Amino acid sequence: MKRREFFKKAGVTVAGAAGAATLASPALSQGRTQWIGVSAFGKAGLLGAAYENFAKTVSTLTEGSLEIKLYHSGELVGGLEALDAVQSGTAQMGYGAPYYWAGKSDAISFVAAMPYGLNAQEQNAWFYYGGGIELADETSYNPLGLKFLPLGNSGNQMGGWYAKDINTVADLEGLKFRMPGLGGEVLKTFGVNVVLLPGSDVLPALTSGAIDGTEWIGPAADLGAGFFKVVKNYYYPGWHEPATVLDAFFDKGAWDSLNDTQRAAIEQAAMATNLGVLSRFQAVNNASLKKLVNEHGVQLKPYSDELLQAIGERTPEVTAELAKKSPEATKLYNSIVEWREGMVQWSGISEGKFMNARTSAPFKTI
Amino acid sequence: MKRREFFKKAGVTVAGAAGAATLASPALSQGRTQWIGVSAFGKAGLLGAAYENFAKTVSTLTEGSLEIKLYHSGELVGGLEALDAVQSGTAQMGYGAPYYWAGKSDAISFVAAMPYGLNAQEQNAWFYYGGGIELADETSYNPLGLKFLPLGNSGNQMGGWYAKDINTVADLEGLKFRMPGLGGEVLKTFGVNVVLLPGSDVLPALTSGAIDGTEWIGPAADLGAGFFKVVKNYYYPGWHEPATVLDAFFDKGAWDSLNDTQRAAIEQAAMATNLGVLSRFQAVNNASLKKLVNEHGVQLKPYSDELLQAIGERTPEVTAELAKKSPEATKLYNSIVEWREGMVQWSGISEGKFMNARTSAPFKTI
Repeated sequence: MKRREFFKKAGVTVAGAAGAATLASPALSQGRTQWIGVSAFGKAGLLGAAYENFAKTVSTLTEGSLEIKLYHSGELVGGLEALDAVQSGTAQMGYGAPYYWAGKSDAISFVAAMPYGLNAQEQNAWFYYGGGIELADETSYNPLGLKFLPLGNSGNQMGGWYAKDINTVADLEGLKFRMPGLGGEVLKTFGVNVVLLPGSDVLPALTSGAIDGTEWIGPAADLGAGFFKVVKNYYYPGWHEPATVLDAFFDKGAWDSLNDTQRAAIEQAAMATNLGVLSRFQAVNNASLKKLVNEHGVQLKPYSDELLQAIGERTPEVTAELAKKSPEATKLYNSIVEWREGMVQWSGISEGKFMNARTSAPFKTI
Repeated sequence: MKRREFFKKAGVTVAGAAGAATLASPALSQGRTQWIGVSAFGKAGLLGAAYENFAKTVSTLTEGSLEIKLYHSGELVGGLEALDAVQSGTAQMGYGAPYYWAGKSDAISFVAAMPYGLNAQEQNAWFYYGGGIELADETSYNPLGLKFLPLGNSGNQMGGWYAKDINTVADLEGLKFRMPGLGGEVLKTFGVNVVLLPGSDVLPALTSGAIDGTEWIGPAADLGAGFFKVVKNYYYPGWHEPATVLDAFFDKGAWDSLNDTQRAAIEQAAMATNLGVLSRFQAVNNASLKKLVNEHGVQLKPYSDELLQAIGERTPEVTAELAKKSPEATKLYNSIVEWREGMVQWSGISEGKFMNARTSAPFKTI
């Protein structure tokens, strides 16, 4: 989209007050900008609240020179149409998860999460100090006319809900399971009948037996989704989504026309939101997990070593094939794989070793 | 400090241009504010760069209505005098680590890090969604006339440098070791002669044999400090500092006199800096560790299970005694201990389990 088109579509409402030229105030002399922001998420949840807070913060930081009027999922366009809405100029920014836009790009799913890949801390290190944001832009967002910023992370997800126990590779054969993204591609190679369903259809499908199970997010979101009413076996860990990235995407023309203050406001508020969303998921998951187990009879179960090992050994074959689909996907994949190697080494002897060791300390309140 | 005193000390330089009253521009009508910021850290390192970037960002976000002129360690006052400088009104903000100010507060060291306590993700969850910032203020910073915000995290540190191998509890007896903070208090109970030395004195003390070892931060910072020239045994993990918090502290009167934009600018830039510092440590540690091992002959060694278990069992006794010193310390300690319990449960089945499982996946670049 061209710059002129953007200004028309973005609806610049104040071109500068009459006396503004006498003041050295960029916000006034360059006028006030109104954006429309769309979202793949509903207003009610944790992510809707984070998006509201982000827009409010940008307004406060720019003293109203950049206002983002938000439309959550279904309010202006459907949740999965958010990226289309920005590309068509209906909105100037959107909020979602990169793998929602897999139909638009062979590379973009690798920005979201890689099975057996990076945890949230390592993912953020790659984004901010490993060239990750620039590479996501170059390989995935810029070709779509967009600019990317991370706007939250789920942290390590849960493995999912199963009607029956699964312990062995043989138990996967013929299983009807809902799992989008790269994890689903891996499960297909084990004979799983991978089903893709919009969120609202998952509980009915579980209830009717149309599917044998589903992954979702983590305890807090899963409790709200109510899967515990139908199936009781809740597996961990979420090998398929170790730290799923939420993405903000901006019309590139709109982004480029921001002044320094506006751009800094978005960048700082986005980085703070990235940490805030991860922190909030981390803060609420355990209480929700307790409720699921203690009040709803959910059985918390680890994936067997056999399964974790077999799926882990298969995963790189599947992801490598997907990464060969385009030069952009290959470039992004190689960066993540290289980064992952160093992170597995460092986190293994620091965070990983520490988390195993600390269980020996019997802390009590006094 | 009273508000009037603050304005005098902070040196408000522009009270508003003559014509400003006719404009609805809070930044102009309330004038421009200049602060002085001091630091416990030198300009050259990762933390000095983060502090510079923070101040620059605040200036950009406020369009110059709040300028923070920085003086790094030794430039205006000594690094460990930073908090004194803010309390006396010489500066309006400071940067350091909470345990540097242990002489001022019985509670404040618990804000920094607890041996066998929270990792960085859990620590941030507590700060932002567990009431941690408010509790740190109430118990530790407000009583000193200050307002607190987290401004970075080291992530999991390394265990430290030792001239000789240590494998058993008996090896600790009589050891002369530099370790400040709560970890040092724990080691004392094992007969360690715990030594406190300013950073610049550590390498000379190691060289002369005045100490048998030292902890420092992590591979990147430790490489720069040059300890590898004298001792070669480098132990992990950093049970004593699983995720050390860096603190920003503000004169309470100065903080309270900020307008909404200025306060939001500091809060957002601080939260972004918090994530940025952690991300940068995470990004650079592994390459530094490789250099230490491959180019400088450093021996990377895990603490023995015997030591990790014995120290882990002793730690809560020691920290509980320290937390009994004042009602503020007790209140803060109990909040952290309760939070830790939920986090150990959740992180154990999510992040911890995942990090063990993912090593089976043989990713390669394509």
